[in-house]
Amino acid sequence: MTTRQPPSPSLIDVARAAGVSTATAGRALGGYGQVRAGTRERVLTAAAELGYRTNGLARSMITGSTQTIGVVVTDVANPFFAIALRGITDVVQPAGFEVLLANTAGALVAEQRALTVMSEKRVDGVIVAAAQPAEGAHLEHAIELGVPIVLLDRQVTGAADADSITIDNEHAAAEAVTHLLELGHRRIGVVTEAGEQLPALLAADDRPGGAFPSAMRLRGYLGALGAAGLEVDEHLIGSARYDRDSAYDATTRLLDLDDPPTAVLCTDNVLATGAFRAAQDRGLRMPEQLSLIGFDDEPWTTLVRPELTIVEQPTYELGTRAGQQLLDRITGGRERRTNHVQLRAKLVVRGSTGPV
Amino acid sequence: MTTRQPPSPSLIDVARAAGVSTATAGRALGGYGQVRAGTRERVLTAAAELGYRTNGLARSMITGSTQTIGVVVTDVANPFFAIALRGITDVVQPAGFEVLLANTAGALVAEQRALTVMSEKRVDGVIVAAAQPAEGAHLEHAIELGVPIVLLDRQVTGAADADSITIDNEHAAAEAVTHLLELGHRRIGVVTEAGEQLPALLAADDRPGGAFPSAMRLRGYLGALGAAGLEVDEHLIGSARYDRDSAYDATTRLLDLDDPPTAVLCTDNVLATGAFRAAQDRGLRMPEQLSLIGFDDEPWTTLVRPELTIVEQPTYELGTRAGQQLLDRITGGRERRTNHVQLRAKLVVRGSTGPV
Repeated sequence: MTTRQPPSPSLIDVARAAGVSTATAGRALGGYGQVRAGTRERVLTAAAELGYRTNGLARSMITGSTQTIGVVVTDVANPFFAIALRGITDVVQPAGFEVLLANTAGALVAEQRALTVMSEKRVDGVIVAAAQPAEGAHLEHAIELGVPIVLLDRQVTGAADADSITIDNEHAAAEAVTHLLELGHRRIGVVTEAGEQLPALLAADDRPGGAFPSAMRLRGYLGALGAAGLEVDEHLIGSARYDRDSAYDATTRLLDLDDPPTAVLCTDNVLATGAFRAAQDRGLRMPEQLSLIGFDDEPWTTLVRPELTIVEQPTYELGTRAGQQLLDRITGGRERRTNHVQLRAKLVVRGSTGPV
Repeated sequence: MTTRQPPSPSLIDVARAAGVSTATAGRALGGYGQVRAGTRERVLTAAAELGYRTNGLARSMITGSTQTIGVVVTDVANPFFAIALRGITDVVQPAGFEVLLANTAGALVAEQRALTVMSEKRVDGVIVAAAQPAEGAHLEHAIELGVPIVLLDRQVTGAADADSITIDNEHAAAEAVTHLLELGHRRIGVVTEAGEQLPALLAADDRPGGAFPSAMRLRGYLGALGAAGLEVDEHLIGSARYDRDSAYDATTRLLDLDDPPTAVLCTDNVLATGAFRAAQDRGLRMPEQLSLIGFDDEPWTTLVRPELTIVEQPTYELGTRAGQQLLDRITGGRERRTNHVQLRAKLVVRGSTGPV
């Protein structure tokens, strides 16, 4: 069978068929202004018979609102963003807003383009998990054009007028390290994506503006060791890219040290899969020979033996709060002070961590 | 700091600042028609200085295209749909299309509403993972209004004019069962969401139109047993809801039988997590005491011991093919024959399956 595009009936056609003026037909279909019940009925019947579709574009040009928000993430296939996105849609759809989604694959130029397109499409606001937390000029520009922005999961330098909903990653990582310290561990390694930022993190006195969660977690690791009076041993910092194999290799390098760590913190769920596998392949008993901590309560963390101690992020809530913040900003709150919310992550202790 | 919405400069403002006619300014900004290079430069500079935004709504009303497609899924937090969605965006974004996303939570009424809203917003087409494969009237209605539809992952009864990209779930499940038969298993159980459809599946002679993947997989299980000359033992069909705990209970019931199965097929990844855990908690050695097969190559399937034999679905490709099919349909193919593509899943044999 073939599909065929029929001629699209206009408001004028509906008005003519119902025997009313175009203005009356518009009011009846739009649900605004005064229309008598019988007239309204006639218009709706005519519209249904003709197959008339309300023109959302025309309505948006008149009302100035598209009832649409933008959501820009780096990778929608990453369970973290997929769950946060579900949180966003669960809040904004019941409020009558649709979601225009863009995936940037972590490329700043894709994010800039997405902001431009969304702004042209007159979205009512945008939630952004920034590709480059150090680069916020395009976000500030969108805000200046009247498009409210809520930052998701990461602060951004140069986007001072954007609201933000983030997780206190620094505190979360510090709490995980403190748990290991309390178990008596002193040689504590970390598998991290943020290895190349180590010199900057060691040198910096004050809190960075825009930073990836991975950098904030490494900062928490360093801070917890410092608070316990331990010196940072750079050999214990295992740099990895964001994939399982790279984390496997980084963990193997840590375990190959003359004085290997007795415990390892993985600052991300994907990195934890590689680290767990490396420990497993080496035949290390956990937690007796190695304590291991991961991030995120993914299904696998309770299927492996021992079950993995993890830092559980409130990922779904991150999405619902971001959605609610943007709705608040859109519906009358454009003049209010910028709002920054930090949610707390929770350490869930399971079998993979134990005393030295 | 507070955010403030500035007055939005119009095309007239830009034309005045550049000292040209409105028509010339429109051509220069829209990139169509003849404009001298120097003039074009002056208009773009004026637009940038004034902070002029192209009005995508106005452009769409003129061109008749919003360069937007809709994507409707039941649960964007489900890794299956998250990965397929990534595939869709990876194809349509480079082609200049944005994605309007709706999450239905499996509710038909939410899907119907999403189709209406998307149609009003004049999307150029919609990809739908249907909430109720037996209910396609609203999809056929959208097609009649000129909105092409591509069905994702499931056929739908009553949407005869929609293209579809699905996975051959029946064949995939049959192949998994055949693998178990070849290993000598004769008591083969299944953990399934589609248990209550068993009578219909046993009675039906011909292929159903719209069906959930779970039902097609149960059909494949039944077919493979039949082809091997085995009678179906309904005690071996473990009905579960779509969650880990329910699958755990269903598996436990199978293992409690007087004559328990020596092998179990789980028709979904979430069900497999519950089944794996049930076997583990009972202390069953896999594959010596129980062979187990799951669906989807999730990270956990290679982290557990033994690694899980699985049916690997081409999930990302499902998304890219759906995106491409819809683009083909939008850009000139509305008159072409309806296109139905079935992708093949792949059995990946690992340590959890072995001889009886």
